[in-house]
Amino acid sequence: MARRQDVTRALAEWIVGCEPAHIPASVQDQGVRSFVNWIGCAVGGASHETVDRALDGITQFSGPAKATVLGRTERLDVLHAALLNGISSHVLDYDDTHLKTIIHPAGPVASAALAVAELKNLSGADLLHAMIIGIEVECRIGNSVYPEHYDVGWHITGTTGVFGAAAAVSKLLKLDVQKTVWALSLAATQSSNLREMFGTMTKSFHPGRAAQNGATAAFMAQAGFDSAEAGIEGRRGFAAILSTKQDYGEILDTLGKSWEAELNSYKPFACGIVIHPAIDAGIQIHDEHKIKPEDVETIELLAHPFVLELTGKTEPKTGLESKFSIFHSAAYALARGDGSPTAFTDEAATDPQIVALRKRVKVTTDKSVHEDEVTYTVKTKDGKTIKKYIEHAIGSVHKPLSNEQLNVKFTKQSSLVIGEARTKALLDLAWKIKDVAKASDLAAASLPK
Amino acid sequence: MARRQDVTRALAEWIVGCEPAHIPASVQDQGVRSFVNWIGCAVGGASHETVDRALDGITQFSGPAKATVLGRTERLDVLHAALLNGISSHVLDYDDTHLKTIIHPAGPVASAALAVAELKNLSGADLLHAMIIGIEVECRIGNSVYPEHYDVGWHITGTTGVFGAAAAVSKLLKLDVQKTVWALSLAATQSSNLREMFGTMTKSFHPGRAAQNGATAAFMAQAGFDSAEAGIEGRRGFAAILSTKQDYGEILDTLGKSWEAELNSYKPFACGIVIHPAIDAGIQIHDEHKIKPEDVETIELLAHPFVLELTGKTEPKTGLESKFSIFHSAAYALARGDGSPTAFTDEAATDPQIVALRKRVKVTTDKSVHEDEVTYTVKTKDGKTIKKYIEHAIGSVHKPLSNEQLNVKFTKQSSLVIGEARTKALLDLAWKIKDVAKASDLAAASLPK
Repeated sequence: MARRQDVTRALAEWIVGCEPAHIPASVQDQGVRSFVNWIGCAVGGASHETVDRALDGITQFSGPAKATVLGRTERLDVLHAALLNGISSHVLDYDDTHLKTIIHPAGPVASAALAVAELKNLSGADLLHAMIIGIEVECRIGNSVYPEHYDVGWHITGTTGVFGAAAAVSKLLKLDVQKTVWALSLAATQSSNLREMFGTMTKSFHPGRAAQNGATAAFMAQAGFDSAEAGIEGRRGFAAILSTKQDYGEILDTLGKSWEAELNSYKPFACGIVIHPAIDAGIQIHDEHKIKPEDVETIELLAHPFVLELTGKTEPKTGLESKFSIFHSAAYALARGDGSPTAFTDEAATDPQIVALRKRVKVTTDKSVHEDEVTYTVKTKDGKTIKKYIEHAIGSVHKPLSNEQLNVKFTKQSSLVIGEARTKALLDLAWKIKDVAKASDLAAASLPK
Repeated sequence: MARRQDVTRALAEWIVGCEPAHIPASVQDQGVRSFVNWIGCAVGGASHETVDRALDGITQFSGPAKATVLGRTERLDVLHAALLNGISSHVLDYDDTHLKTIIHPAGPVASAALAVAELKNLSGADLLHAMIIGIEVECRIGNSVYPEHYDVGWHITGTTGVFGAAAAVSKLLKLDVQKTVWALSLAATQSSNLREMFGTMTKSFHPGRAAQNGATAAFMAQAGFDSAEAGIEGRRGFAAILSTKQDYGEILDTLGKSWEAELNSYKPFACGIVIHPAIDAGIQIHDEHKIKPEDVETIELLAHPFVLELTGKTEPKTGLESKFSIFHSAAYALARGDGSPTAFTDEAATDPQIVALRKRVKVTTDKSVHEDEVTYTVKTKDGKTIKKYIEHAIGSVHKPLSNEQLNVKFTKQSSLVIGEARTKALLDLAWKIKDVAKASDLAAASLPK
């Protein structure tokens, strides 16, 4: 299985050779859904304090304002726009997920590709094509090292996203095979990002920086800045150093034949994906039973150990922290029937009724429970027991959001930032990405009026 | 020894509290030597093709031109200037070395600090103080994970340099403790760079990118972009994820009492530090015996295994590759009596006489031989044997370059780029860094006339 030879070069050859006609319609359709979901999330996150702070930090260094900060009036140079859009698209933890690896694929890739497409005056079809290629590369590299790589503590969206961004931008710049090899190796040497940052603004910095670093890699390779031949599979390369697992068959076998990009999924809830089953259950019980928070004796959850590992914060003090608290999320879902961005604000995290209820949440973990599965049991003070078993959470590949549900999600978050009229226009245009002559029109449609 | 608690915060408190009066004169003197050596190397490397290619790649994205690319006429925004000066100061592999960790300390730190000092109109004394603090932080973090971290394949100059740059820039920006914690954690999550890149332009990208990323971390923290509390020592933080060794005593014990920054050393030869003993020996034999290359039967080296591990390239095709070839270096030293940048050009690497001689170099490794030690034996075709034992190479802490030798090294490389007159003026000013009212004058003095 593990083939050491020429992984980086084989990927580069595939990137250079892949044409739109090689990509099945079902994969292209999923690519459009990924784009729609991504740009909605970027606009939805655009007014978050995290984005304000990032702009305050870096605007003073921005070069020529050739690219759009989605959902805002600022324009930045291409590399910094990639950073900012990667941040805003992830800050609500509401973006897409490749469930096999928990990679959030679009953030690093689309943030880089759209900014470059604006710079180079490329079409929506060019953008979509490069984005699908980038996501494919990113998720395959993820598969080759998951789960060992993630388990030890790497934030895999950042570590693999930089490859996806480099691949997409290399494609948009029409780099040859050698320069694409260099771009991938320049990506490899920048691969980083630690899970220690979860719950802070720096988590969303990761897909942004991956976008920026991957784009930088491609522009430097274009200029003839050389790099290693085997940045991914070399003895001192990415896979050997950042993972104890290196399965290069996951990268090369079936490349161009089966598509990881088709497996993308979209979150119905604005938080860590592993909490989704519990929120799904909590909202269902809320809707069906209308239990008052003060009547709850305990909420008992039976879940995969990952749930506590990743989202075990018992006393979240901010909205960002609350996205990593199974206790907050399960309580809020039951009390308010909500898992959208409004469930994860600073106000929600410190709501006394929620704080009281989350202390009553008990989590039992069991490795035999699947990551996408939960048993959610409410015991009331008057002795009733209500149990809800979730086999697959809404939004997973088994129960994907429909296009109509994506529209509702998009509209709900985007309207708060750019208003309903502009949201509708952006949404309509985003679905038509393949027919948009200038990708920059997509960016322009995201601006507040 | 290994203390997990509050390493990041303790470092931040030390950075914020450290005043020039707390730093012994001997450490300050070494800081000045580090600065002089660094700026000479940056000017010496400024005309290298690697720097041209990097500028071709990124200039289109540069923001306001507030900082100097040393030894050149271009000006860039602060972050990109940090990148470029980090590249040029390392591209000849001629910079400084903290021998305990093989970190090249000044590149990431001084490249970031000088650019920020230009922007903020700070003094040479401010710059020197921040640089010493940055180097101290960088080397102590290196000590806490070396050698395991380096052995596995991380390029430690990049992985720890980002902390040094973040520390230095945090100091220059007068960040408080909380923001310095965030800057260090933003550095932690960007810590990267792989040894797979050795022998390509991307090796020198590492200190440059570390400078740029560390400075970005500090500017974002200044803007209130928050991050983890324990980016270094956290369960999913830098030390746990990037190393199997975590000795936090190396960071905190004796902090502010003993000084890693005082242990900096300066390369007499323009290549990997582990080849220095062999070059030292080869040049001594060349000078003493004037052996013609065609009269050599074999060159036998007995050295530490690291020498082959790091510099085992048998057929280097470029100047950059030849810096990682013990075979080339040992042959060139004997044939030409040279280990300066002229020994590592593309022409030198492909010189037929050198190519023929390097095939006659045989390396035996032995773990009982120290990394700084070599036995260099020449056997001639007419049956003579000449043996040279080097206990400590010239340039090591045991045989440091004198200030006068630093001047010769500086002048030789800088004159080729900016001429003798401007080299002399820059050198004089660099030694006076503590008395220079505007650090920007140091940068300006590096320009070609």
